[in-house]
Amino acid sequence: MSFRERLKRIVDQVDGSIAALIMGYDGIPIDESIKPQVSLDVQLLAVEYATLLKEIKKTVDVLKTGSMEEVMITTGELRILIRTINDEFFMVLLLGKEANFGLGRYLLSLNAPHFSEMLQQ
Amino acid sequence: MSFRERLKRIVDQVDGSIAALIMGYDGIPIDESIKPQVSLDVQLLAVEYATLLKEIKKTVDVLKTGSMEEVMITTGELRILIRTINDEFFMVLLLGKEANFGLGRYLLSLNAPHFSEMLQQ
Repeated sequence: MSFRERLKRIVDQVDGSIAALIMGYDGIPIDESIKPQVSLDVQLLAVEYATLLKEIKKTVDVLKTGSMEEVMITTGELRILIRTINDEFFMVLLLGKEANFGLGRYLLSLNAPHFSEMLQQ
Repeated sequence: MSFRERLKRIVDQVDGSIAALIMGYDGIPIDESIKPQVSLDVQLLAVEYATLLKEIKKTVDVLKTGSMEEVMITTGELRILIRTINDEFFMVLLLGKEANFGLGRYLLSLNAPHFSEMLQQ
């Protein structure tokens, strides 16, 4: 299964999800699956959150309580779920506020090792 | 009920929790409840996360998808749950990895309006 097929499957499975992406900490996406008719600028969001994630990673590293694994940020309209894949890449799942957050988290954790393997080949 | 009593009740109710705090974005705590025999430097953690939270708030504000409500960061050893109270203050719940994360989130959302009211008086 390709990156995009895997990402699309996550988006299709989670009610209320908007998009799923694999990105590098440099803000460059590997691949993405965005639901049709989404008016959000998903790429802009992803780039801004990639920059932020670098700051979060720095703080986590300073505090020496293990490496960063997962980040969730909820705003008035969105929920952003991030899961690290390895030192270079992470997954992003953008969800609406009413989306099935628990299932989203579970699917990211389930897919992380697959993406990690695919990125090493 | 005082700030500390409310914070203690959260810590007592959530299995595996380490500490609960109310803090300002300036990194100064209003009050805290830390489980006895905790070896972590909770104050240092809280200050570092307060600094980080300001960065997260900036990104969220730039992206105009509503205001920041909730942040969760999971590292190898810890889970940090943050819930905004108002423009100046936020709650922090530090959890061990095996802690009841769902209950922690629920109790923060339940207590946010009470703390907001207490801080306005």
